[in-house]
Formats: sequence, C-alpha cells, structure tokens
Amino acid sequence: MSRKPKKLLNNPNDVPAEQLEGLLYASGGKLIKVDGYSGVYRHDIANDQVVVVTGGGSGHEPMFAGYVGQGLADAAALGEIFASPSPDIIIETTKAMHKGKGVLFVYGNYAGDNMNFDIAAELLEEEGIQVKTVRVTDDISAAPLSKMSDRRGVAGDMYVLKIAGAAVASGYDLERVHEVTAKANFNTRTMGVALGACSIPQTGKFNFELAEDELELGMGIHGEPGVRRQKLTSADEINGEIVERLCEDIELQSGDRVCVTVNNLGASTYTELLIAYRKVHQELQGRGIQIHDVLIGNYCTSQEMAGYSITIFRLDDELQGLYDMPCDSFAWRK
Amino acid sequence: MSRKPKKLLNNPNDVPAEQLEGLLYASGGKLIKVDGYSGVYRHDIANDQVVVVTGGGSGHEPMFAGYVGQGLADAAALGEIFASPSPDIIIETTKAMHKGKGVLFVYGNYAGDNMNFDIAAELLEEEGIQVKTVRVTDDISAAPLSKMSDRRGVAGDMYVLKIAGAAVASGYDLERVHEVTAKANFNTRTMGVALGACSIPQTGKFNFELAEDELELGMGIHGEPGVRRQKLTSADEINGEIVERLCEDIELQSGDRVCVTVNNLGASTYTELLIAYRKVHQELQGRGIQIHDVLIGNYCTSQEMAGYSITIFRLDDELQGLYDMPCDSFAWRK
Repeated sequence: MSRKPKKLLNNPNDVPAEQLEGLLYASGGKLIKVDGYSGVYRHDIANDQVVVVTGGGSGHEPMFAGYVGQGLADAAALGEIFASPSPDIIIETTKAMHKGKGVLFVYGNYAGDNMNFDIAAELLEEEGIQVKTVRVTDDISAAPLSKMSDRRGVAGDMYVLKIAGAAVASGYDLERVHEVTAKANFNTRTMGVALGACSIPQTGKFNFELAEDELELGMGIHGEPGVRRQKLTSADEINGEIVERLCEDIELQSGDRVCVTVNNLGASTYTELLIAYRKVHQELQGRGIQIHDVLIGNYCTSQEMAGYSITIFRLDDELQGLYDMPCDSFAWRK
Repeated sequence: MSRKPKKLLNNPNDVPAEQLEGLLYASGGKLIKVDGYSGVYRHDIANDQVVVVTGGGSGHEPMFAGYVGQGLADAAALGEIFASPSPDIIIETTKAMHKGKGVLFVYGNYAGDNMNFDIAAELLEEEGIQVKTVRVTDDISAAPLSKMSDRRGVAGDMYVLKIAGAAVASGYDLERVHEVTAKANFNTRTMGVALGACSIPQTGKFNFELAEDELELGMGIHGEPGVRRQKLTSADEINGEIVERLCEDIELQSGDRVCVTVNNLGASTYTELLIAYRKVHQELQGRGIQIHDVLIGNYCTSQEMAGYSITIFRLDDELQGLYDMPCDSFAWRK
C-alpha cells in the first residue's frame, strides 16, 4: 500500500487530548477527567464499592474510555496512540475513584501495559490500596491455547469489563469480582482479519503494508503479525475458518450459550460486518450453539485499519446473569 | 485515487440479500422478512396503530432496516445498493404491516425513491389504504433553503423516523403523525465532508475520485457533488465551517435546544469523529445553544467512503417529548 494516510485532524500531537475532550463533551457530564492526567472516571459511583479500572493506549476508540459507565468500568487510564498509559496516570486515575473496597485492573495483555499497571499496583498497595488484576487474553492468533497468558487482549475486553462491572453492581467483594472476571476472560475468544493498514497520526505512516489483493488472518489491533497472509478470497471462506478456529479453541459444544461481537477495526463497511455475521450465525447454529446476544459495530478499533474481528463469549449461568444486567456508557448501552 | 476497492464479500450480486440475512439473524427474531420481497418489518406491532414505512437503496447500513423497531419505523423496503426499492417491494412491505389506521412513508428525497414510493402510494390508495408522505430533506449542501424540497435526505432520516415512531407510540392519528414528522424534517439539517470515495460492490469501482490531498465539503451519500473541493486543512476549520453553515441555515438562536449526530460515512476513524464533535460542542456552546443529546458513530454510511456528516436537530417542547421516548432497533436503542 503506497498511499499516505488521510485523516481530518488538527495538530497530530493533540489527537489523544482532543478526542478525549470530544468524548467528555459528548458524555454530558457523565464522565469526569482526572485532574492533570489523561484518565476519566464515572460521575455516579457508589461510595462503598470495588472499583474497576481499565486503560491502555489510545487509538482504539471507543475503547477504553467509552466503556466507563454504569455496569462497566469505573475509570480508564489512557496513553498516547497505541502506547500504554504511564504508571502515574494509572495511579492518579485509580486514586480519583478508590472507595476503600479495593481495585480491579482489567486491561489487554501487552508488555507495556503489564509493566505500567504492575508498577502502579505495587505503588498503590504501598499506600494501602488493594489491587487485583485480570489481563485480557482473547486473541487466539497470538499464541496457542497452552500459552493463553501470552495472548493479546483485543475486542474481548468489552465482555470482560461487562462482567467485572456487573459483579461490582451485584455487590461482589474484590475477591469474587476478580474470580468471575478471570472466568469471563477465560471464556472469551477473538480472531481478526485485516484488509488494510492503520496509521498513528503523529508518524503519518501506515504501520504495515498489505498488497492490493492480500488479507492477513489474525492480525493484532496494532498491526501485530497474524497467522497467515493470503490472496483475497470469499468472505464465507475466511469467516468460516475464523468461527472454526474460535469454536475449537474454546471447545464449544452443542447446547453451549454464547454472545457474539463482529467488531469493525475501522474502515470496513457495515455491509461486510453483516455478511460476516450471517456466516457466524449459520456456523454456530449448525453446531447447535445457542446465540444469546449479538453486537455488530465499532467496539474496539485500530484507527483506519480495514478489517474486523469476531469475538465469542461463552456463558454459564453466573456469567449470563451478570451479562444481562443493564449497562450504560458511550460505547455500550444495554 | 487509483486503488481498487477492497472488501471481503462473497458474490457481489448477493450483497443486499446476504447483508439483510445477517441483520435478520442478528435481530434474534425482532425483524421479520417480507415473504418474497426485500423488505423487513417489526415482529411486535400493535393492531390498531398508524404504520411508519421507510426505505431506500441499500449500502447505507445500518440505514434503513436498522431503524425498524420499537419507537422508530415499523417496516423498511430495501433496494439494491444505492438504488431505490421498486414499487412492488414498497407495496408488499406496506401490506405486510398495515393495520387499518393508515401509513406514513418516510424516506430520503431522491428522484428514484420519490417516483417509486409515489407509485406505491397511489396503488395502495386504490386498495383503500391511506398513505401520507414525508420526504427527508436535511442535506443543506444540495440546494439553498428557499428550495428545501430539492435537498437530499441523508443521516437526518434518523431523527425524522424517531419522531414519527414516537408519535405513533403516543397514539397520534395519521394526520398528526404526518404533521409532527414534517416538522421534525423541517428542524433537521446535515452537512458532510468526504475524504475518500465509495464503491458499489457489483461494479467494483469507486463512484468518484478525490486527490490524495483533497477533501470535498458537502458531498452526498452516493458521491453527489458537494459545495466545494479544496486542499486538506485542519479539522477545526472544516468542522467550524460546517457548524456555521448549519446554524445559519436553521437560524439557531441562543437558548435553542438541539440534538447532534456526528455520523461516520464509512472509513473515518472514531478519532476524527470525536475531534469533530469537540469543535461542534465548542461552537454550539459559544452560541448559547443547549445540547440535549449527542450520538457519534455509524448511523448512515456510504460503503467505504471516508468522511463524516454532522446533523443538528432542533427541538421544541413537542419534539423533545417525543425524542425522549424509548426506542429499540438494531441501529438505535434509547
């Protein structure tokens, strides 16, 4: 791909701050900015609850700040585009919210995020704030199942945050919030397909190249290598393979209940998302899987990357009860 | 732009049918297909209500079928990509829903749609079904205010449908549903900006060309010419001009209440949408305008067109009461 990225921006260095400002305005007061740090928190948190803090690099909007709200995350610490928030951002965002009942960190499994959230956790513990962590590892392309803890976190973050937030709203203590959130992560699997590259505004260059007639199966949300490059083929062939891989990885059985998300990585058409879901539905139905809920849209993007990801979230009775609870944020209202 | 369109599809001729199938599956039974015709209707309509029928060309997903649901449209007649549904599709979709209280057609003002919906209305009237029509004319780029009835319908369809659906849910008769829906259209203004082209799957070619360093202000959702081509500039400059033009056209006064939508035409980043809303908010606030609600996302797309539109919907007490009623469809839950 030889073309240059083309976006309508102001100063590229101001992108994270300006888009956060847009989101804060759009929230109508429901989101509050952490004073002096690129973090946001809910305006309406209860005084005696566990607090769920998420975060990561910017550039994946509406992830992460868009998931701060009732029944989801309570706060989000935000880095520059595709770069982890620093420990001080995480610490100040957490302190702005902490209510004395402990904190659960929920974020995607990337080296930078792991390091910075771990440092923040250590320093917060020193101040007497109890912190537990769930790293989201839903991207099955990144490592085999036997090394699940090496996998990246991608769109599946949303299900893990949904369960964490619902567990908090149900009055679970930190121990139990942590436990059920870890279970939610274990029950979430995602695989993506990319047709075009993404770019970081500050560099003005595409992060990778894909030939005009190529796709990459399993590409990560920052352009991390997937499982295979190949010539463009039919949607049903690729989507069928993705479902096959997801079902096998999570060992879905006939009668299992799942939620499904088809997530636009950025520049794909709604047409492609709907045609992808058609195949997902047919394949799951053919395997006797019960589809409990479906989301199709822009939930975790990668700037202008063309492509999408498919996420399967397997429910049990506890997870379904929590999933069905209401939530209300910029990105997800239920 | 010399590149070829790149999408993950099956047979391009099957796109409208396959994407509709995906949407029907995703609705979990809430949408029902009209037997033998490319139309959909709600599963849960009351037996003695006015019926709101919308429709138009496919390719703008989630418009139109995504707005069929509680408190919005009751049915949608769907054409091929960027082509009006034929009269028989409109007639059969209407007949599948009609409950003896009359029908309101709400659709974007395009020659093909006007002709086909008018023919359908005439034939339905001959069968004793009363039909009234509101053509949405929100695109201020298409003609001056003095020729508002020549303007195209774009993303503003969503507000007009919202009010029509809420009026029906409030028990208004056809006369009053028509009246308040026409008022909603009169209070809706949209302007877009395009950075890249869209393509129809069957042709596999872009509908227009834009140079690498150019944007087009006011482009329509099928690539219709806008008001100006120019070199890329800052987001604030373009967004400021759009707000200025919208406010002037609708004659917004300090103290007026509005809803705002920043709608992705397809391939723009969420980053750009949020940065656009930031400027819209600042400009409206600076003019003393009250912002009642904000939507940012993919509401009326144009395949892979890069760019977005900004819609302002001015409220009065009646419109605000109707706007605040719940709605529940694939594209919009409130």
